[in-house]
Amino acid sequence: MIMAAKTSSCESSGKCSGGAKGQLDKVPLDAKHKIIVMSGKGGVGKSTVAVNLAVSLADKGYSVGLLDADMHGPSVPKLLGLPNLPLRVNEKGDIVPAFVPPNLKVTSVAFLLRDRDSPVVWRGPLKMGAIRQFLEEVEWGHLDYLIVDLPPGTGDEPLSIAQLIPSPDGALIVTTPQDVALLSVRKSINFARMVGLEVLGLVENMSGFKCPECGKEIAIFGNGAAKQAAAELGVPLIGSLPLSMAISKSGDDGRPFVRQDTDGVKEKFEKMAKDLVIRLEKKQR
Amino acid sequence: MIMAAKTSSCESSGKCSGGAKGQLDKVPLDAKHKIIVMSGKGGVGKSTVAVNLAVSLADKGYSVGLLDADMHGPSVPKLLGLPNLPLRVNEKGDIVPAFVPPNLKVTSVAFLLRDRDSPVVWRGPLKMGAIRQFLEEVEWGHLDYLIVDLPPGTGDEPLSIAQLIPSPDGALIVTTPQDVALLSVRKSINFARMVGLEVLGLVENMSGFKCPECGKEIAIFGNGAAKQAAAELGVPLIGSLPLSMAISKSGDDGRPFVRQDTDGVKEKFEKMAKDLVIRLEKKQR
Repeated sequence: MIMAAKTSSCESSGKCSGGAKGQLDKVPLDAKHKIIVMSGKGGVGKSTVAVNLAVSLADKGYSVGLLDADMHGPSVPKLLGLPNLPLRVNEKGDIVPAFVPPNLKVTSVAFLLRDRDSPVVWRGPLKMGAIRQFLEEVEWGHLDYLIVDLPPGTGDEPLSIAQLIPSPDGALIVTTPQDVALLSVRKSINFARMVGLEVLGLVENMSGFKCPECGKEIAIFGNGAAKQAAAELGVPLIGSLPLSMAISKSGDDGRPFVRQDTDGVKEKFEKMAKDLVIRLEKKQR
Repeated sequence: MIMAAKTSSCESSGKCSGGAKGQLDKVPLDAKHKIIVMSGKGGVGKSTVAVNLAVSLADKGYSVGLLDADMHGPSVPKLLGLPNLPLRVNEKGDIVPAFVPPNLKVTSVAFLLRDRDSPVVWRGPLKMGAIRQFLEEVEWGHLDYLIVDLPPGTGDEPLSIAQLIPSPDGALIVTTPQDVALLSVRKSINFARMVGLEVLGLVENMSGFKCPECGKEIAIFGNGAAKQAAAELGVPLIGSLPLSMAISKSGDDGRPFVRQDTDGVKEKFEKMAKDLVIRLEKKQR
């Protein structure tokens, strides 16, 4: 059910190209691969996956851009331990992204806010404008990978990104094992298909908890539902991450878990990232 | 498809009343109290709080309406175990809400979808129209309480609701103890203040986990941060709920936990609901 008024949004942003058709200009972007991280439901760890994927790739030597497209709950700077400082503008008038050594460039609406407590009360067209600016007016340079962290849902931002980014490789969809979360995942998968975005795979987060007191495995949010949903919907389940205090703390501390020793989680995640890279590089050829 | 959307045409034509200021007509609504449940971040249990509050009040004999305003991830029907059947229209052309005995009326965009896997790909004005329709073209009758379950964030829907609902009592803001979630809570509180919505209080969810194997309390998402944020921001912390397999399962099963024996959670929640009712009834006088 795509009832989206493509034209209305494009008209109000004043940047329509093929007016009558309501198509949007693709943004020119020197990025070899573009991965969109999305989820149907919030709080499933989408930003955590995006941040750790970006850091993992950057630490392997790839040049990586990370675009935090969540206008209302931009958490990428917090997860990376970056201060909320305004971004610089270079002599050409382009925004200079925040830099995380050795190879990661980051933009986020959080950098545009007066203070960390200010809400962004923008309607669709304004958000669209901001996302376009983050794509085309940022000094990204050449990127091997652009990772886009979308807000949850199937609203303005996912639509805009899908319309603006030239030939994205596809979407990673993050979920938890709960039925309620999987309900939204199905929507995300259908949404991706509707806008012509390949689903690279599902990432299941919080898929089990190891009690630090007794060492037993507890399936707090249930078990096996993501695998079943993936099979039903014909998409690969490319990784499962546990519910872990170390992951939660790594986010609060602003230190990505792929840079820490986190009880096997790092290794699991690195394997997933490596498999993904192999798949995408193969596709390229 | 019931989506006639009076407002959307008004919005897109720019001929809304008070257009320039972005003010909207208030919707006439026969509801004594209106409570808006919101969160800055998804996945914190906002819908769980909204559903259990609505059921708890209805079971006490109040006549209650529950409006699921989450267009992209409508989970209220699932949490209540309601089937995704289309809503009936009465002889006057008004939508007849779903009914949960003894006293609860429910509307949700989930009831409008062809199947549970369809995403809603609507931009702001269309969503606004749907929300207005859910407020004014639904056979709510007289309500003691209208509970509105907002989608996470500070975008179109919260803005619309705040603009459309006549004299709401205020907002409950749901969070988890994580720093990352509290970052969004601050935004929500400031957002509520910006639109003139009283913050009734914070509800902290997932505030501790009791291991079912060894019985030890584990602070998976940290500890004490919500209390500190509430004090800093000058809003009351009105309740804390644990991370619990019983709560998670109650959602997946569609059986609200206030109707089950859930290891003390029910009692905790009922106390919070009772305190809230006393406060709101006092305010009324």
